[in-house]
Amino acid sequence: MHGCQYVPVFAEEGMLARTLCVSAPGKVILHGEHAVVHGKAAVAVAVNLRTFLKMTPRNDSKILVELPNIRTRLCWDTSELQPLLEAFPADQTESQPPNPEQVEKLKAFAGLNNTTATPQSLATLAFLYLYLSIASRCGFMPSADIVVWSELPTGAGLGSSAAYSVCLAGALLSGCGVIGYPLEEGQSESRWSKENLAVINSWAFRGEQVIHGNPSGVDNSVSTWGGALRYQSGKICSLKRVPTLRILLTNTRVPRSTKVLVAGVKDKMMKFPAIMEPVLTSVDAISQECETVLAAMAEHPSLEHYPVLEELMDINQHHLNVMGVGHSSLDKVCQLTASHGLHSKLTGAGGGGCAVTLLRPDTTPPVVEAAVRDLSDCGFECWETDIGAPGICAHSPQSLRAEVLKAFSGV
Amino acid sequence: MHGCQYVPVFAEEGMLARTLCVSAPGKVILHGEHAVVHGKAAVAVAVNLRTFLKMTPRNDSKILVELPNIRTRLCWDTSELQPLLEAFPADQTESQPPNPEQVEKLKAFAGLNNTTATPQSLATLAFLYLYLSIASRCGFMPSADIVVWSELPTGAGLGSSAAYSVCLAGALLSGCGVIGYPLEEGQSESRWSKENLAVINSWAFRGEQVIHGNPSGVDNSVSTWGGALRYQSGKICSLKRVPTLRILLTNTRVPRSTKVLVAGVKDKMMKFPAIMEPVLTSVDAISQECETVLAAMAEHPSLEHYPVLEELMDINQHHLNVMGVGHSSLDKVCQLTASHGLHSKLTGAGGGGCAVTLLRPDTTPPVVEAAVRDLSDCGFECWETDIGAPGICAHSPQSLRAEVLKAFSGV
Repeated sequence: MHGCQYVPVFAEEGMLARTLCVSAPGKVILHGEHAVVHGKAAVAVAVNLRTFLKMTPRNDSKILVELPNIRTRLCWDTSELQPLLEAFPADQTESQPPNPEQVEKLKAFAGLNNTTATPQSLATLAFLYLYLSIASRCGFMPSADIVVWSELPTGAGLGSSAAYSVCLAGALLSGCGVIGYPLEEGQSESRWSKENLAVINSWAFRGEQVIHGNPSGVDNSVSTWGGALRYQSGKICSLKRVPTLRILLTNTRVPRSTKVLVAGVKDKMMKFPAIMEPVLTSVDAISQECETVLAAMAEHPSLEHYPVLEELMDINQHHLNVMGVGHSSLDKVCQLTASHGLHSKLTGAGGGGCAVTLLRPDTTPPVVEAAVRDLSDCGFECWETDIGAPGICAHSPQSLRAEVLKAFSGV
Repeated sequence: MHGCQYVPVFAEEGMLARTLCVSAPGKVILHGEHAVVHGKAAVAVAVNLRTFLKMTPRNDSKILVELPNIRTRLCWDTSELQPLLEAFPADQTESQPPNPEQVEKLKAFAGLNNTTATPQSLATLAFLYLYLSIASRCGFMPSADIVVWSELPTGAGLGSSAAYSVCLAGALLSGCGVIGYPLEEGQSESRWSKENLAVINSWAFRGEQVIHGNPSGVDNSVSTWGGALRYQSGKICSLKRVPTLRILLTNTRVPRSTKVLVAGVKDKMMKFPAIMEPVLTSVDAISQECETVLAAMAEHPSLEHYPVLEELMDINQHHLNVMGVGHSSLDKVCQLTASHGLHSKLTGAGGGGCAVTLLRPDTTPPVVEAAVRDLSDCGFECWETDIGAPGICAHSPQSLRAEVLKAFSGV
């Protein structure tokens, strides 16, 4: 029965049948950041910097969670967790939004009362929430070693928390048999059915709610489904066909507060409504044009689409500067990449954070290397990667890159 | 009778009664360049870089014109010009648009057939047109030495040709008694009545038509009336009260073709109408907001208005970049001045040309000097001057600055 779809990986009595590996991508906003807060469309795409999770069976009653990126190691005996289960009713088939009482109980249990929300404490709470909810849903508490390692930096607006929640949801739901595990014997990689992806996404959203309070659901949706999606006025819509595009992702490492930046845009809208409203209208049109071009590229891949995508990025970068969410470090990224013939824009909240640079299929390695060298000289961190990447995947452990295996075994 | 209004400075028989000095300002577009081509509002202001004209009586029948800036010296005997008069009907009280036949005759006379339109040839044609039209209008051909010297660079979009036409129209119309000369004995400076300014402006527009073919009339209007005006869909409207503002004007000396830039914006509008139309709408709102702020400043001068003017300049500079009329030299001006806490935008056609930097009343000389030093190091030319300057003025020769007197006498 090994590897058949819909067969739980944990045996009925709470024993894990086999090791299970999953990965989920991060996200970047291609267009529409900030405008989306004011009811305009945004286009988010999966970026192929991934979070990897490995879940290995244990035959004691321990549950171990290792998060090497944030130097966190959690370890409990399932008997310790048992009393918490009463806050998680077992009779619900759908995932439920976390209520404050549950979160307070988890905080008290983990000794996180009165502490500030660090990545460590948030990751702990999200794990406990998902583990207990899913354990309650399926009637047993699995014992396992779980390692989660990510290529994504934390707090850079690249959806690292969503990729974490998606991996946890995918692994725990499959492990507990709530959904099947799609990897057949001998396969190196496989994906879940649409129905099961919808289940994973809804549970991952709960994890995001624990971490962010009131997330839009964009990050977990992109990480689950992959590709690209449109988000507007609370509605998320996956784009049908999306090309894979090469990008350079640059983290300026300039810290910023999304809250402060969003408030700044709102102030500017109040101060100059007649000047600012058309700018958001223009951004909305950029998102729509981008969608159209992406669809055309998926249909008929051709170099002729690239100048259009580049022009849209340039225009939007100017608009984001008009909104006041630019930063001299982001100007620097645009300038340096432009000197290599490449086009960039900030992605996400702005005011520092990350920038995305489009690479054409024919952009040669020396050009990319020269750009990366210039950017690194400014103290920025660069990744050459793809957008339009696949969402959550199941992997055979043997098929994982050495780097991932090392991260898993190095713990 | 000397110096009384409406008494011709030329005696009836064509003799100049006294030396006559006038000056007229250049212009900069504060907001709305390019958007104005698509029916949006633009705000143009008089810049206190002036063109000076001195007209000295001669008692022979010679007419001499010296244009030291463009190393041009014209000299005719009025008897040579006499045959041309038949192309300029005498029975018209209003100024008339130049017709192609007239311009062809003047070209043939000045030996400018089949030559390209150089500043020298255009200045010659505009002088001949105005001189002959006004001579025909008043019935005699004055004999005089005319020197025109300007602080304005030619071909930098600062309205140097309009300032030239305005000075010529003001001097010739006053000299021939078509309108009075406002300077009373003992006065150092004086301005014409509104009615007479309207006459000067209408004739200056004819000079501009000779030079530019189909000018908007903005440049001669600003140069005649001074202050600031709004231009939209062919309608020019002087702003009632305008403050005088300090600026730094920078000429990047990067040559560009206004025609090519205007065509580029049009292409972008056709390519991305939904993205570009809102940008022009936003520029229109910037022009309106700017007008409102200028009116408020004239009413209640206060430092609090400056951050708003600066923000409008920053936003518009981004919009102009979206339109594709920016240039790395203009980015450099913005960047360098920003490093001194100053805000700049391109003015006019863009793609090089000039930038305007706002100075606050409390911007100290060391700050301005440091900015000028940095800009000069890039090979740019800078002037510290004012906008909202007065339009055409009559001056007593004694009241002119040494630099102007030297330019007049150095010929």
